[in-house]
Amino acid sequence: MDDAVTNSPVPSVRSCRTGAWLVGARGSVATTAVLGAAAVRAGLAGPVGLVSELPSLAPAALPSLEDVVLGGHDVVVTGYRKRAEVLAAQGVVPRDLVVALGAELDAADADVVVPAAEPDQRRRVAALAAAMRDFHGRHDLDRLVVVDVSSTQPPLDTDDAELVTDLASPEAVRAAWDAGRSPLPASAEAVWAAYEAGAAVVAFTPSPGVGVPAVAELGRRAGVPWAGADGKTGETLLKSVLAPMFVQRALHVDSWSSFNILGGGDGQALADPVAARSKTATKAAALEAIVGRPVPGPLHIDYVADLGDWKTAMNHVGFTGFLGTRMQLQFTWQGCDSALAAPLVLDLVRLLAACADAGRSGAVPELGFFFKDPVGSHEHALAEQWHALLGLVDELAGRRP
Amino acid sequence: MDDAVTNSPVPSVRSCRTGAWLVGARGSVATTAVLGAAAVRAGLAGPVGLVSELPSLAPAALPSLEDVVLGGHDVVVTGYRKRAEVLAAQGVVPRDLVVALGAELDAADADVVVPAAEPDQRRRVAALAAAMRDFHGRHDLDRLVVVDVSSTQPPLDTDDAELVTDLASPEAVRAAWDAGRSPLPASAEAVWAAYEAGAAVVAFTPSPGVGVPAVAELGRRAGVPWAGADGKTGETLLKSVLAPMFVQRALHVDSWSSFNILGGGDGQALADPVAARSKTATKAAALEAIVGRPVPGPLHIDYVADLGDWKTAMNHVGFTGFLGTRMQLQFTWQGCDSALAAPLVLDLVRLLAACADAGRSGAVPELGFFFKDPVGSHEHALAEQWHALLGLVDELAGRRP
Amino acid sequence: MDDAVTNSPVPSVRSCRTGAWLVGARGSVATTAVLGAAAVRAGLAGPVGLVSELPSLAPAALPSLEDVVLGGHDVVVTGYRKRAEVLAAQGVVPRDLVVALGAELDAADADVVVPAAEPDQRRRVAALAAAMRDFHGRHDLDRLVVVDVSSTQPPLDTDDAELVTDLASPEAVRAAWDAGRSPLPASAEAVWAAYEAGAAVVAFTPSPGVGVPAVAELGRRAGVPWAGADGKTGETLLKSVLAPMFVQRALHVDSWSSFNILGGGDGQALADPVAARSKTATKAAALEAIVGRPVPGPLHIDYVADLGDWKTAMNHVGFTGFLGTRMQLQFTWQGCDSALAAPLVLDLVRLLAACADAGRSGAVPELGFFFKDPVGSHEHALAEQWHALLGLVDELAGRRP
Amino acid sequence: MDDAVTNSPVPSVRSCRTGAWLVGARGSVATTAVLGAAAVRAGLAGPVGLVSELPSLAPAALPSLEDVVLGGHDVVVTGYRKRAEVLAAQGVVPRDLVVALGAELDAADADVVVPAAEPDQRRRVAALAAAMRDFHGRHDLDRLVVVDVSSTQPPLDTDDAELVTDLASPEAVRAAWDAGRSPLPASAEAVWAAYEAGAAVVAFTPSPGVGVPAVAELGRRAGVPWAGADGKTGETLLKSVLAPMFVQRALHVDSWSSFNILGGGDGQALADPVAARSKTATKAAALEAIVGRPVPGPLHIDYVADLGDWKTAMNHVGFTGFLGTRMQLQFTWQGCDSALAAPLVLDLVRLLAACADAGRSGAVPELGFFFKDPVGSHEHALAEQWHALLGLVDELAGRRP
Ligand SMILES: NC(=O)c1ccc[n+]([C@@H]2O[C@H](COP(=O)([O-])OP(=O)(O)OC[C@H]3O[C@@H](n4cnc5c(N)ncnc54)[C@H](O)[C@@H]3O)[C@@H](O)[C@H]2O)c1
Ligand SMILES: NC(=O)c1ccc[n+]([C@@H]2O[C@H](COP(=O)([O-])OP(=O)(O)OC[C@H]3O[C@@H](n4cnc5c(N)ncnc54)[C@H](O)[C@@H]3O)[C@@H](O)[C@H]2O)c1
Ligand SMILES: NC(=O)c1ccc[n+]([C@@H]2O[C@H](COP(=O)([O-])OP(=O)(O)OC[C@H]3O[C@@H](n4cnc5c(N)ncnc54)[C@H](O)[C@@H]3O)[C@@H](O)[C@H]2O)c1
Ligand SMILES: NC(=O)c1ccc[n+]([C@@H]2O[C@H](COP(=O)([O-])OP(=O)(O)OC[C@H]3O[C@@H](n4cnc5c(N)ncnc54)[C@H](O)[C@@H]3O)[C@@H](O)[C@H]2O)c1
Ligand code: NA
Ligand code: NA
Repeated sequence: MDDAVTNSPVPSVRSCRTGAWLVGARGSVATTAVLGAAAVRAGLAGPVGLVSELPSLAPAALPSLEDVVLGGHDVVVTGYRKRAEVLAAQGVVPRDLVVALGAELDAADADVVVPAAEPDQRRRVAALAAAMRDFHGRHDLDRLVVVDVSSTQPPLDTDDAELVTDLASPEAVRAAWDAGRSPLPASAEAVWAAYEAGAAVVAFTPSPGVGVPAVAELGRRAGVPWAGADGKTGETLLKSVLAPMFVQRALHVDSWSSFNILGGGDGQALADPVAARSKTATKAAALEAIVGRPVPGPLHIDYVADLGDWKTAMNHVGFTGFLGTRMQLQFTWQGCDSALAAPLVLDLVRLLAACADAGRSGAVPELGFFFKDPVGSHEHALAEQWHALLGLVDELAGRRP
Repeated sequence: MDDAVTNSPVPSVRSCRTGAWLVGARGSVATTAVLGAAAVRAGLAGPVGLVSELPSLAPAALPSLEDVVLGGHDVVVTGYRKRAEVLAAQGVVPRDLVVALGAELDAADADVVVPAAEPDQRRRVAALAAAMRDFHGRHDLDRLVVVDVSSTQPPLDTDDAELVTDLASPEAVRAAWDAGRSPLPASAEAVWAAYEAGAAVVAFTPSPGVGVPAVAELGRRAGVPWAGADGKTGETLLKSVLAPMFVQRALHVDSWSSFNILGGGDGQALADPVAARSKTATKAAALEAIVGRPVPGPLHIDYVADLGDWKTAMNHVGFTGFLGTRMQLQFTWQGCDSALAAPLVLDLVRLLAACADAGRSGAVPELGFFFKDPVGSHEHALAEQWHALLGLVDELAGRRP
Repeated sequence: MDDAVTNSPVPSVRSCRTGAWLVGARGSVATTAVLGAAAVRAGLAGPVGLVSELPSLAPAALPSLEDVVLGGHDVVVTGYRKRAEVLAAQGVVPRDLVVALGAELDAADADVVVPAAEPDQRRRVAALAAAMRDFHGRHDLDRLVVVDVSSTQPPLDTDDAELVTDLASPEAVRAAWDAGRSPLPASAEAVWAAYEAGAAVVAFTPSPGVGVPAVAELGRRAGVPWAGADGKTGETLLKSVLAPMFVQRALHVDSWSSFNILGGGDGQALADPVAARSKTATKAAALEAIVGRPVPGPLHIDYVADLGDWKTAMNHVGFTGFLGTRMQLQFTWQGCDSALAAPLVLDLVRLLAACADAGRSGAVPELGFFFKDPVGSHEHALAEQWHALLGLVDELAGRRP
Repeated sequence: MDDAVTNSPVPSVRSCRTGAWLVGARGSVATTAVLGAAAVRAGLAGPVGLVSELPSLAPAALPSLEDVVLGGHDVVVTGYRKRAEVLAAQGVVPRDLVVALGAELDAADADVVVPAAEPDQRRRVAALAAAMRDFHGRHDLDRLVVVDVSSTQPPLDTDDAELVTDLASPEAVRAAWDAGRSPLPASAEAVWAAYEAGAAVVAFTPSPGVGVPAVAELGRRAGVPWAGADGKTGETLLKSVLAPMFVQRALHVDSWSSFNILGGGDGQALADPVAARSKTATKAAALEAIVGRPVPGPLHIDYVADLGDWKTAMNHVGFTGFLGTRMQLQFTWQGCDSALAAPLVLDLVRLLAACADAGRSGAVPELGFFFKDPVGSHEHALAEQWHALLGLVDELAGRRP
């Protein structure tokens, strides 16, 4: 026996067949994730954009992308090849890749379900859970992670007393069902189904879901881990590094004006002011948390069709320095939303599968690095979130129990 | 004995009369520091911009600003009131303050020396050291910190073999003096004098000084601490938070184009391409260190008279994400250089005085937070530098020996 | 022989004592105009910002600024010195000027009226007209120009059938008064009074006034000229040169997103969504008129208190070129609204006085150069408006009858 | 009665087979022009970007794009299909178009010549003229227009007295040839050849050519028209609308800082500081001409490989308004250089062919609209240039003799 080897234990990659069930499986983010995973597997794409491939995360021995199987459900039926061609035309993904991986894209269609219309919420949820279990069994998976990348839903109406009562516990939800009500918000149906199916959950949208009391309680009983909410890919990402800079330099942020324009399906959904409310809430959270008080300034998200998936954020920061001198910072971020979000979806599937494997259950605050509104944590500064993520890596590497 | 008190040791502020000897005492940064310190003492200005006043730094029990006495030397004679009026006209400092503190500004003139012309370097240095000692004695100081805020000097000519030999050790410098040469670069004369006078040193400019081998050795023998180099107040400050973001998100930075325009004395000095070389070198360092390789893209500093002290940095970052998608970030920073730099000068005087008090000698890498090109450290990411600074605070608080 | 002199008739400046009656006389624009006129008269300010001082306008022989007397009314009483000091503190006007012209500012207070509360609209209007006539007589004026620089009012409610009928003619207005109604919108009261007093009118705000049918008819009967509406000083000014560029280069403007932030009194008034409607309407007009179709893209005006009078406009233009290639233009305008508007107010007073002098009555479309929503014209391109203005200069110079 | 019809004579399009000889025929601009012309002919592209297709230019009855034949010479041999694929990969042209028009691109290769190496300048020029005549004959053309879209060459060395003498007249050039010298700068060789071949010339680059005295004289003797210099497609285009705005509003431009980054072949050529001198000269001309004095501020052009053909211009303008208030305008232009330039090349071929047809010879100042440094004109304001162009249209329409 060669002891020298065991002295420097290089954690081998977990051989864990991991399923990723995408809620909104036909959307831009989902399609880019499906195409991207196929590209990486085929050796046609490198690790750029994948946090999980950074050397710092190697010790976590995450499940390999080779072992991730993607499926899910959506309300639309358009196949992946067509969706990917549209994304290629907009410059989101390279056309060559779509051509080269046409067969893989067509094959992936087999794992996308369009749920049958079903007016009863309990039955809708049960059908979803059954579909997830079926996917799990069919692909002989070790783990299943459900990721919500569907259209953003409005926040809960907390003024609706009956609703609040109905969502207080799993029992209350079931009692409401018995009484013929449908208390779960649309976005929570898939989460409920996931927990019923024993799956971990990533809330990549700001929609209410993992945070609903009854849902969280169901998750805790299921003993699975979850993470969220709302992928941090643009303006808020920048705020999470710029705002700490102002704070650490004792500069007073007088106002922070945030203007976002985007097209695409996400842009269209957010053009609905009710749905947008979830997003503006998660977007505002970071700044206030870091600066330690509300910061004046408008926050707009506007639908501008010709931009497609290219989210452009123009921000203006007014700040005061020593002796009251007033100064400005402006930035313009021109990011391709799906190209930024899709690799994070794959990262989160791998990380949450490893968390489940390691016996973690409940909210995983160490994954706040990926989110605008981290569940289980009040930390919004990216650098601190990065350290928390490295702490999780240590834990997964068995270095810290 | 009251145990309760020792149980929660609240470090009281050090009662340490601290002198700050400003090299370039009549410059914009120096004048703003003198005015600002007077304003804080008079209760006319708050802690905005002063890192040393942040709650996180309270445990270090830094010497109070009340106990800091400012003096120094310059080659020009214009009094502080006049200099401050010019700064007020440019919007750098509030006119009201200049009016209210006119008497204090006039009084501060008494501590500024204009060195007599003296062709012999050894004698020039000795005269400077004598002036520093005199200042120390006159004000009955416990500590003296010399801060270089004079015009930026060009880097050392490392191709000049004789010069390199002359600067190899204190003995070599003295031998060169014996031989009638003047090996020390202008910016190192004040540092040499400081060490002779037992003072700590802050290199707020990119000029060669604390890093020259002979000078560093002299400092070590003097047992004093020093910190530097080149205050980080604008474009580089932003790079030190934005570049880590790209790295941690596995995004590939393709190019980073840096355009700086400024007027004022500093702008005029940097319009000289030879002097500018020191600055572009320190400015380039951060990005390369954080990204781990040289990043393509121009870096210009141009003199634009009408901007005065208002440094405007326009940056364009081209980066690649998942599947090769290309994206952009632009920012424009409109900062008032002296308003940003002056409080850091006061911070560094207080911190370095406390370091000296605590027995630290040699380069203090934990002060890298303040600098473009941190001596004794390769860490350029602001968040990591902040943690190092907090570590120093712990040490000064006696929590870590 | 000195015939040569008469051969090139250099038009001497009209010796025409001109009154400027400012509605909103205590506002930022008005105060800057009062201070600025005094500064120019005292030789303390130059012609920068004054279109009427450009060599190209010299042939019009406009009344000299020496001969312009400023007065007006407002609902607030704060004196000019105090208002000017506030503007100086915000950097809108130089403090030195306020100090140097303190006496002139105090003197100007004598010509500002605060109308007594009066519930009856007919009597309110009559009192205003009397005040204007009194000002005219007291200063022995040759001409009076009334300029609306008061807070922006909401647009007319054109769904209110009774209101529309009441505003159809001067007779209808009077009949409505007889019936106890107050049909004139607030902003039209001063215009009505002006016409009653035989004064010309400049509508520098987007409020309904000169365009109301009854009011316009009254003006025609009075035989006076008027110009408007809504001073073009920032974002729209830029659009009026950039949009023609896209059109003339056959580039297709896909979207134009317009984000405006400002503080000050104007910002506060526009924070009211109803009042803002007048402004967003005039702002949108230019782009649509120049491009020849509505251009998609949001247009926001947000109140950001710390900006004070500094209107910052961030615009993003998406456009398509040859073969469908998509491109972008962004701009950020950081303008001081009152410093931009006040000289235009003085320009318009001089130009409209000359028009009156030259017998012009009704809308003067050649003054569209100054306005977001030019009355009597559909031309929004600045260059074309400039040519129209030069045409008016020719006319005033007697070159074109 | 149908007289009404003849009363409004609709000018039919000239049936004029026009040849376009592209110097630098394999470059990005040339390739985009060749692909674009084919696309328009095939009905696969619309008129966006083509000034010559604007309704305002219809009266000129320009030769149809159907009747334009493209050819030329270059020093490289890569075929059009390959060049176009590279441009498609960079997003300059749509891939679909390259695929659909592959046959047309291959066919176009037949008309591109690579001149044989030939040390003697007279013979080099003669060979070029012969190639042009051959192209003219082979395609049975009515007109030939030679367009320089080759790599930018350095400006003439006006300190070289012998060179200046050699270039004073056609005779001097020939005498220099007799004496074994090669006085013509590289970029003038093709122009000389063009005039020898009776062709009109468009100088789309800033290289010395049409402006060289001997060359201009040769052109006059040949009786052909020419236009130039240096296509105006980005930063200078913006300056030519923004600078007049400042002037007409009496705002004082204090500084204008111009930062340009681009990749591609043009970027690589301009990375050579000697070649760049031609470009920075033409770029500076517009601002100074419009403002009426030199405007302070740096002008940089930097090669940033990853940008490819995407020229990004970041400009900062400092300006002063009424009472000395300082303000700022910034803009960022993200244009695709070849997509902007190629249609202008086609426009100029059509316009210059019509000019030749109409008997114009010598510089055509009315085409200054298209150029950074208009030959024969000092007018740089775009709106004035547009009016001059419309005047030319009137002339070509026979409305003005
Ligand atoms: N792209 C990013 O950077 C980013 C960042 C954070 C959050 N998000 C969120 O991710 C989500 C997806 O973004 P996208 O750009 O892919 O949007 P998209 O509009 O392209 O896709 C959303 C998909 O969800 C489907 N869908 C809608 N309702 C559904 C339902 N009830 N059940 C199942 N599927 C349903 C839609 O049919 C569509 O295919 C959005 O909510 C967005 O806000 C994206
Ligand atoms: N302001 C910032 O944000 C910032 C940041 C980093 C570094 N710095 C550096 O700080 C320095 C000071 O900046 P500033 O804006 O005050 O410049 P400044 O030109 O206003 O002041 C420099 C002063 O140094 C004096 N001086 C020149 N040579 C001297 C010598 N040999 N001995 C003594 N004095 C001498 C000059 O007379 C002048 O008064 C510059 O080197 C600048 O690069 C400034
Ligand atoms: N500054 C610019 O660049 C610009 C450009 C175009 C239009 N405008 C318009 O000019 C107007 C003035 O702008 P400002 O910045 O001076 O605003 P401001 O708020 O400083 O001043 C408005 C003044 O009007 C007074 N007022 C309100 N109601 C009145 C009434 N019924 N009668 C008389 N006075 C009344 C207010 O008391 C105040 O003093 C605004 O409507 C603004 O939209 C300004
Ligand atoms: N694209 C624009 O917006 C724009 C605007 C104004 C001017 N221009 C000018 O147009 C020219 C072409 O630009 P591009 O982007 O196509 O550049 P490019 O580098 O892609 O093409 C230049 C071509 O010229 C060829 N060439 C070099 N020397 C030659 C010679 N002696 N004879 C014949 N061919 C020669 C090169 O081989 C190359 O194929 C440049 O000078 C550029 O400055 C372009
Ligand atoms: Na949280
Ligand atoms: Na109009």
